[in-house]
Amino acid sequence: MPLVRIDIRKHPDPEHIQKLGQIVYQAMRDTINVPDHDNFQILTEHDGNRLVNDPEYLGIRRSEGQVFIQITLNEGRTTEQKKMLYQTIAKGFNEAAGVRMEDVFISLVEVKRENWSFGNGIAQYAE
Amino acid sequence: MPLVRIDIRKHPDPEHIQKLGQIVYQAMRDTINVPDHDNFQILTEHDGNRLVNDPEYLGIRRSEGQVFIQITLNEGRTTEQKKMLYQTIAKGFNEAAGVRMEDVFISLVEVKRENWSFGNGIAQYAE
Amino acid sequence: MPLVRIDIRKHPDPEHIQKLGQIVYQAMRDTINVPDHDNFQILTEHDGNRLVNDPEYLGIRRSEGQVFIQITLNEGRTTEQKKMLYQTIAKGFNEAAGVRMEDVFISLVEVKRENWSFGNGIAQYAE
Repeated sequence: MPLVRIDIRKHPDPEHIQKLGQIVYQAMRDTINVPDHDNFQILTEHDGNRLVNDPEYLGIRRSEGQVFIQITLNEGRTTEQKKMLYQTIAKGFNEAAGVRMEDVFISLVEVKRENWSFGNGIAQYAE
Repeated sequence: MPLVRIDIRKHPDPEHIQKLGQIVYQAMRDTINVPDHDNFQILTEHDGNRLVNDPEYLGIRRSEGQVFIQITLNEGRTTEQKKMLYQTIAKGFNEAAGVRMEDVFISLVEVKRENWSFGNGIAQYAE
Repeated sequence: MPLVRIDIRKHPDPEHIQKLGQIVYQAMRDTINVPDHDNFQILTEHDGNRLVNDPEYLGIRRSEGQVFIQITLNEGRTTEQKKMLYQTIAKGFNEAAGVRMEDVFISLVEVKRENWSFGNGIAQYAE
Protein backbone atom coordinates (compact mmCIF):
# COMPACT_ATOMS: atom_id res chain seq x y z
CA MET A 1 0.00 0.00 0.00
CA PRO A 2 2.68 2.46 0.45
CA LEU A 3 3.27 4.41 -2.73
CA VAL A 4 6.91 5.47 -2.67
CA ARG A 5 8.24 8.38 -4.73
CA ILE A 6 12.02 8.76 -4.85
CA ASP A 7 13.62 11.77 -6.55
CA ILE A 8 17.39 12.15 -7.01
CA ARG A 9 19.86 14.00 -9.18
CA LYS A 10 21.01 12.01 -12.21
CA HIS A 11 23.40 9.32 -10.99
CA PRO A 12 26.18 7.68 -13.03
CA ASP A 13 24.98 4.20 -12.06
CA PRO A 14 21.65 3.64 -13.87
CA GLU A 15 20.63 1.08 -11.26
CA HIS A 16 21.39 3.27 -8.25
CA ILE A 17 17.86 4.58 -7.82
CA GLN A 18 16.39 1.09 -8.05
CA LYS A 19 18.77 -0.02 -5.32
CA LEU A 20 17.49 2.85 -3.16
CA GLY A 21 13.91 1.76 -3.82
CA GLN A 22 14.73 -1.77 -2.77
CA ILE A 23 16.23 -0.51 0.50
CA VAL A 24 13.13 1.58 1.25
CA TYR A 25 10.88 -1.43 0.61
CA GLN A 26 12.95 -3.64 2.89
CA ALA A 27 12.99 -0.95 5.62
CA MET A 28 9.19 -0.61 5.49
CA ARG A 29 8.80 -4.37 5.94
CA ASP A 30 11.24 -4.40 8.84
CA THR A 31 9.88 -1.42 10.78
CA ILE A 32 6.26 -0.56 9.93
CA ASN A 33 4.71 -3.92 9.08
CA VAL A 34 4.39 -3.46 5.35
CA PRO A 35 3.49 -6.88 3.93
CA ASP A 36 5.68 -8.93 1.62
CA HIS A 37 5.23 -7.95 -2.04
CA ASP A 38 3.58 -4.62 -1.19
CA ASN A 39 6.05 -2.74 -3.37
CA PHE A 40 4.97 0.17 -5.59
CA GLN A 41 7.37 2.94 -6.50
CA ILE A 42 7.88 5.86 -8.85
CA LEU A 43 11.59 6.63 -9.30
CA THR A 44 12.72 9.84 -10.99
CA GLU A 45 16.14 11.27 -11.81
CA HIS A 46 16.44 15.02 -12.35
CA ASP A 47 18.92 17.50 -13.74
CA GLY A 48 20.96 18.91 -10.88
CA ASN A 49 19.38 22.32 -10.65
CA ARG A 50 15.88 20.89 -10.50
CA LEU A 51 16.21 19.62 -6.93
CA VAL A 52 16.54 22.35 -4.34
CA ASN A 53 17.86 21.60 -0.88
CA ASP A 54 19.18 23.84 1.81
CA PRO A 55 22.77 22.86 2.65
CA GLU A 56 22.49 23.50 6.38
CA TYR A 57 18.88 23.58 7.67
CA LEU A 58 18.77 22.24 11.27
CA GLY A 59 22.55 22.07 11.20
CA ILE A 60 22.67 19.13 8.82
CA ARG A 61 25.27 19.40 6.05
CA ARG A 62 23.54 18.30 2.87
CA SER A 63 25.19 17.73 -0.49
CA GLU A 64 24.14 17.53 -4.13
CA GLY A 65 23.53 13.86 -3.45
CA GLN A 66 20.38 14.42 -1.41
CA VAL A 67 17.64 11.84 -1.88
CA PHE A 68 13.98 12.93 -1.60
CA ILE A 69 11.65 10.16 -0.42
CA GLN A 70 7.91 10.73 -0.12
CA ILE A 71 5.80 7.81 1.04
CA THR A 72 1.99 7.75 0.95
CA LEU A 73 0.80 5.11 3.43
CA ASN A 74 -2.04 4.17 5.75
CA GLU A 75 -2.40 6.16 8.94
CA GLY A 76 -1.82 4.45 12.25
CA ARG A 77 1.90 3.98 12.61
CA THR A 78 3.28 5.22 15.93
CA THR A 79 5.96 7.88 16.17
CA GLU A 80 8.31 5.16 17.43
CA GLN A 81 7.71 3.14 14.28
CA LYS A 82 8.29 6.17 12.10
CA LYS A 83 11.57 6.88 13.87
CA MET A 84 12.68 3.30 13.28
CA LEU A 85 11.72 3.62 9.62
CA TYR A 86 13.78 6.81 9.14
CA GLN A 87 16.79 5.31 10.88
CA THR A 88 16.61 2.07 8.94
CA ILE A 89 16.32 3.82 5.57
CA ALA A 90 19.18 6.22 6.30
CA LYS A 91 21.48 3.47 7.60
CA GLY A 92 20.57 1.21 4.70
CA PHE A 93 21.25 3.92 2.14
CA ASN A 94 24.58 4.64 3.74
CA GLU A 95 25.77 1.07 4.13
CA ALA A 96 24.44 -0.45 0.92
CA ALA A 97 24.36 2.45 -1.53
CA GLY A 98 26.98 4.95 -0.38
CA VAL A 99 24.51 7.75 0.35
CA ARG A 100 25.51 10.14 3.14
CA MET A 101 23.05 9.90 6.07
CA GLU A 102 22.76 13.70 6.03
CA ASP A 103 21.34 13.43 2.52
CA VAL A 104 18.29 11.32 3.31
CA PHE A 105 15.13 13.46 3.30
CA ILE A 106 11.86 11.63 4.13
CA SER A 107 8.26 12.85 4.05
CA LEU A 108 5.26 10.69 5.01
CA VAL A 109 1.68 11.35 3.86
CA GLU A 110 -0.95 9.33 5.74
CA VAL A 111 -4.31 8.30 4.31
CA LYS A 112 -7.31 6.13 5.17
CA ARG A 113 -7.49 2.43 4.35
CA GLU A 114 -10.28 2.88 1.82
CA ASN A 115 -8.13 5.28 -0.20
CA TRP A 116 -6.42 2.53 -2.20
CA SER A 117 -7.18 0.30 -5.11
CA PHE A 118 -4.46 -2.23 -5.99
CA GLY A 119 -6.06 -3.35 -9.22
CA ASN A 120 -9.34 -4.60 -10.70
CA GLY A 121 -11.18 -1.48 -9.56
CA ILE A 122 -11.64 -2.83 -6.02
CA ALA A 123 -10.90 -1.13 -2.68
CA GLN A 124 -9.02 -4.09 -1.28
CA TYR A 125 -8.39 -2.52 2.15
CA ALA A 126 -11.87 -1.06 2.78
CA GLU A 127 -13.89 -2.62 5.58
CA MET B 1 -10.25 20.59 -7.32
CA PRO B 2 -8.86 17.19 -7.64
CA LEU B 3 -5.23 17.28 -8.73
CA VAL B 4 -4.61 14.08 -10.67
CA ARG B 5 -1.13 12.64 -11.20
CA ILE B 6 -0.86 9.77 -13.67
CA ASP B 7 2.43 7.91 -14.14
CA ILE B 8 2.95 5.22 -16.79
CA ARG B 9 5.74 3.53 -18.68
CA LYS B 10 6.45 5.12 -22.08
CA HIS B 11 3.63 4.16 -24.43
CA PRO B 12 3.86 3.95 -28.23
CA ASP B 13 0.75 6.09 -28.67
CA PRO B 14 1.70 9.64 -27.58
CA GLU B 15 -1.93 10.41 -26.82
CA HIS B 16 -2.53 7.34 -24.67
CA ILE B 17 -1.83 9.04 -21.34
CA GLN B 18 -4.09 11.96 -22.21
CA LYS B 19 -6.87 9.50 -22.98
CA LEU B 20 -6.34 7.97 -19.54
CA GLY B 21 -6.57 11.41 -17.96
CA GLN B 22 -9.82 12.09 -19.76
CA ILE B 23 -11.29 8.82 -18.46
CA VAL B 24 -10.28 9.66 -14.88
CA TYR B 25 -11.88 13.10 -15.17
CA GLN B 26 -15.11 11.63 -16.52
CA ALA B 27 -15.16 8.96 -13.77
CA MET B 28 -14.74 11.60 -11.05
CA ARG B 29 -17.69 13.54 -12.44
CA ASP B 30 -19.82 10.41 -12.61
CA THR B 31 -19.06 9.00 -9.17
CA ILE B 32 -17.79 11.60 -6.69
CA ASN B 33 -19.53 14.82 -7.76
CA VAL B 34 -16.54 16.57 -9.26
CA PRO B 35 -17.93 19.62 -11.11
CA ASP B 36 -17.76 20.14 -14.85
CA HIS B 37 -14.47 21.73 -15.97
CA ASP B 38 -12.70 20.85 -12.69
CA ASN B 39 -9.88 19.15 -14.58
CA PHE B 40 -6.23 19.53 -13.53
CA GLN B 41 -3.69 16.83 -14.25
CA ILE B 42 0.02 16.12 -14.36
CA LEU B 43 0.80 13.26 -16.77
CA THR B 44 4.24 11.63 -16.82
CA GLU B 45 5.76 8.83 -18.88
CA HIS B 46 8.78 7.00 -17.48
CA ASP B 47 11.44 4.63 -18.66
CA GLY B 48 10.37 1.10 -17.86
CA ASN B 49 12.64 0.41 -14.93
CA ARG B 50 11.62 3.60 -13.16
CA LEU B 51 8.18 2.29 -12.18
CA VAL B 52 8.26 -0.55 -9.67
CA ASN B 53 5.24 -2.76 -9.16
CA ASP B 54 4.89 -6.10 -7.54
CA PRO B 55 3.53 -8.60 -10.07
CA GLU B 56 1.33 -10.50 -7.62
CA TYR B 57 0.56 -8.54 -4.41
CA LEU B 58 -2.93 -9.49 -3.12
CA GLY B 59 -3.10 -12.12 -5.85
CA ILE B 60 -3.49 -9.60 -8.65
CA ARG B 61 -1.38 -10.30 -11.74
CA ARG B 62 0.13 -6.98 -12.78
CA SER B 63 2.09 -6.32 -15.95
CA GLU B 64 4.55 -3.73 -17.23
CA GLY B 65 1.48 -1.78 -18.30
CA GLN B 66 0.51 -0.74 -14.78
CA VAL B 67 -0.92 2.76 -14.44
CA PHE B 68 -0.28 4.72 -11.23
CA ILE B 69 -3.01 7.24 -10.39
CA GLN B 70 -2.73 9.51 -7.38
CA ILE B 71 -5.57 11.96 -6.78
CA THR B 72 -5.46 14.79 -4.24
CA LEU B 73 -9.05 15.80 -3.46
CA ASN B 74 -11.30 17.23 -0.78
CA GLU B 75 -12.16 14.99 2.14
CA GLY B 76 -15.72 13.86 2.62
CA ARG B 77 -16.40 11.22 -0.02
CA THR B 78 -17.89 8.02 1.39
CA THR B 79 -16.26 4.63 1.03
CA GLU B 80 -19.10 3.69 -1.31
CA GLN B 81 -18.30 6.63 -3.56
CA LYS B 82 -14.64 5.74 -3.57
CA LYS B 83 -15.45 2.15 -4.53
CA MET B 84 -17.58 3.42 -7.42
CA LEU B 85 -14.73 5.69 -8.50
CA TYR B 86 -12.21 2.84 -8.57
CA GLN B 87 -14.55 0.57 -10.48
CA THR B 88 -15.45 3.25 -13.01
CA ILE B 89 -11.83 4.18 -13.69
CA ALA B 90 -10.72 0.56 -14.06
CA LYS B 91 -13.62 -0.35 -16.35
CA GLY B 92 -13.15 2.81 -18.39
CA PHE B 93 -9.43 2.20 -18.83
CA ASN B 94 -10.14 -1.35 -19.92
CA GLU B 95 -12.95 -0.60 -22.33
CA ALA B 96 -11.71 2.64 -23.86
CA ALA B 97 -7.93 2.40 -23.63
CA GLY B 98 -7.05 -1.29 -23.56
CA VAL B 99 -5.54 -1.24 -20.06
CA ARG B 100 -5.84 -4.48 -18.08
CA MET B 101 -8.05 -3.97 -15.00
CA GLU B 102 -5.33 -5.62 -12.90
CA ASP B 103 -2.99 -2.80 -13.89
CA VAL B 104 -4.98 0.07 -12.44
CA PHE B 105 -3.40 1.31 -9.19
CA ILE B 106 -5.20 4.19 -7.42
CA SER B 107 -4.21 6.23 -4.37
CA LEU B 108 -6.34 9.03 -2.89
CA VAL B 109 -4.99 11.83 -0.69
CA GLU B 110 -7.68 13.86 1.09
CA VAL B 111 -7.31 17.49 2.13
CA LYS B 112 -9.39 20.34 3.54
CA ARG B 113 -11.41 22.71 1.37
CA GLU B 114 -9.25 25.71 2.20
CA ASN B 115 -6.17 23.91 0.88
CA TRP B 116 -6.71 25.00 -2.73
CA SER B 117 -6.21 28.05 -4.85
CA PHE B 118 -7.43 27.75 -8.45
CA GLY B 119 -5.88 31.00 -9.60
CA ASN B 120 -5.64 34.71 -8.74
CA GLY B 121 -4.22 33.94 -5.30
CA ILE B 122 -7.66 33.28 -3.83
CA ALA B 123 -8.85 30.31 -1.73
CA GLN B 124 -11.98 29.75 -3.80
CA TYR B 125 -13.33 26.90 -1.64
CA ALA B 126 -12.65 28.38 1.81
CA GLU B 127 -15.69 29.28 3.91
CA MET C 1 9.73 21.19 6.32
CA PRO C 2 7.53 22.02 3.49
CA LEU C 3 8.28 19.85 0.48
CA VAL C 4 7.38 21.92 -2.57
CA ARG C 5 6.67 20.37 -5.98
CA ILE C 6 6.40 22.79 -8.89
CA ASP C 7 5.35 21.54 -12.34
CA ILE C 8 5.31 23.77 -15.43
CA ARG C 9 5.41 23.50 -19.21
CA LYS C 10 8.91 23.79 -20.66
CA HIS C 11 9.97 27.43 -20.43
CA PRO C 12 12.50 29.18 -22.69
CA ASP C 13 14.38 30.56 -19.69
CA PRO C 14 16.09 27.59 -18.00
CA GLU C 15 16.20 29.46 -14.71
CA HIS C 16 12.52 30.41 -14.71
CA ILE C 17 11.35 27.49 -12.60
CA GLN C 18 14.08 28.08 -10.02
CA LYS C 19 12.95 31.68 -9.76
CA LEU C 20 9.41 30.45 -9.09
CA GLY C 21 10.72 28.13 -6.38
CA GLN C 22 12.54 31.00 -4.72
CA ILE C 23 9.34 33.07 -4.68
CA VAL C 24 7.38 30.23 -3.08
CA TYR C 25 10.05 29.81 -0.40
CA GLN C 26 10.04 33.52 0.37
CA ALA C 27 6.21 33.59 0.50
CA MET C 28 6.15 30.68 2.96
CA ARG C 29 8.55 32.51 5.26
CA ASP C 30 6.53 35.70 5.04
CA THR C 31 3.06 34.22 5.61
CA ILE C 32 3.10 30.81 7.32
CA ASN C 33 6.16 30.98 9.58
CA VAL C 34 8.40 28.65 7.64
CA PRO C 35 11.88 29.00 9.16
CA ASP C 36 14.90 30.40 7.36
CA HIS C 37 16.74 27.76 5.31
CA ASP C 38 13.77 25.36 5.35
CA ASN C 39 13.85 25.07 1.57
CA PHE C 40 13.29 21.73 -0.20
CA GLN C 41 11.85 21.58 -3.69
CA ILE C 42 11.34 19.30 -6.67
CA LEU C 43 11.02 21.30 -9.90
CA THR C 44 9.84 19.64 -13.12
CA GLU C 45 9.29 20.92 -16.64
CA HIS C 46 6.93 18.99 -18.92
CA ASP C 47 6.04 18.78 -22.56
CA GLY C 48 3.01 20.97 -23.18
CA ASN C 49 0.41 18.27 -23.56
CA ARG C 50 1.41 16.58 -20.31
CA LEU C 51 -0.14 19.26 -18.10
CA VAL C 52 -3.92 19.43 -18.27
CA ASN C 53 -5.77 22.49 -17.05
CA ASP C 54 -9.28 23.64 -17.66
CA PRO C 55 -9.22 27.10 -19.30
CA GLU C 56 -12.24 28.46 -17.46
CA TYR C 57 -13.11 26.53 -14.27
CA LEU C 58 -14.61 28.92 -11.67
CA GLY C 59 -14.53 31.66 -14.29
CA ILE C 60 -10.75 32.00 -14.23
CA ARG C 61 -9.11 32.29 -17.66
CA ARG C 62 -6.07 30.02 -17.56
CA SER C 63 -3.39 29.77 -20.22
CA GLU C 64 -0.71 27.30 -21.26
CA GLY C 65 1.49 29.05 -18.75
CA GLN C 66 -0.24 27.58 -15.72
CA VAL C 67 2.00 26.68 -12.79
CA PHE C 68 1.10 23.73 -10.56
CA ILE C 69 2.34 24.05 -6.99
CA GLN C 70 1.80 21.28 -4.45
CA ILE C 71 3.16 21.83 -0.96
CA THR C 72 3.35 19.13 1.72
CA LEU C 73 3.58 20.86 5.11
CA ASN C 74 2.75 20.50 8.79
CA GLU C 75 -0.90 20.87 9.77
CA GLY C 76 -1.95 23.79 11.89
CA ARG C 77 -1.93 26.85 9.66
CA THR C 78 -5.15 28.86 9.83
CA THR C 79 -7.31 29.54 6.80
CA GLU C 80 -6.25 33.19 7.06
CA GLN C 81 -2.60 32.20 6.81
CA LYS C 82 -3.31 29.99 3.83
CA LYS C 83 -5.12 32.84 2.09
CA MET C 84 -2.14 35.11 2.69
CA LEU C 85 0.16 32.42 1.30
CA TYR C 86 -1.85 32.06 -1.91
CA GLN C 87 -2.03 35.79 -2.44
CA THR C 88 1.66 36.32 -1.79
CA ILE C 89 2.71 33.54 -4.16
CA ALA C 90 0.41 34.72 -6.94
CA LYS C 91 1.46 38.36 -6.60
CA GLY C 92 5.12 37.42 -6.40
CA PHE C 93 4.90 35.23 -9.51
CA ASN C 94 3.20 38.04 -11.37
CA GLU C 95 5.50 40.84 -10.32
CA ALA C 96 8.84 39.05 -10.33
CA ALA C 97 8.42 36.31 -12.93
CA GLY C 98 5.76 37.49 -15.36
CA VAL C 99 3.27 34.70 -14.56
CA ARG C 100 -0.40 35.61 -14.94
CA MET C 101 -2.17 35.48 -11.56
CA GLU C 102 -4.90 33.35 -13.16
CA ASP C 103 -2.25 30.73 -13.88
CA VAL C 104 -1.22 30.02 -10.30
CA PHE C 105 -2.69 26.72 -9.07
CA ILE C 106 -1.86 25.75 -5.47
CA SER C 107 -2.61 22.56 -3.52
CA LEU C 108 -1.64 22.00 0.12
CA VAL C 109 -1.26 18.58 1.76
CA GLU C 110 -1.03 18.68 5.55
CA VAL C 111 0.77 16.10 7.68
CA LYS C 112 1.83 15.50 11.28
CA ARG C 113 5.07 16.83 12.74
CA GLU C 114 6.54 13.37 13.19
CA ASN C 115 6.16 12.66 9.47
CA TRP C 116 9.49 14.23 8.52
CA SER C 117 13.14 13.34 8.59
CA PHE C 118 15.52 16.07 7.41
CA GLY C 119 18.58 13.89 7.40
CA ASN C 120 20.59 11.46 9.54
CA GLY C 121 17.57 9.19 9.97
CA ILE C 122 16.13 11.30 12.77
CA ALA C 123 12.57 12.65 13.19
CA GLN C 124 13.72 16.18 13.98
CA TYR C 125 10.20 17.55 14.58
CA ALA C 126 8.79 14.70 16.68
CA GLU C 127 7.99 15.47 20.32
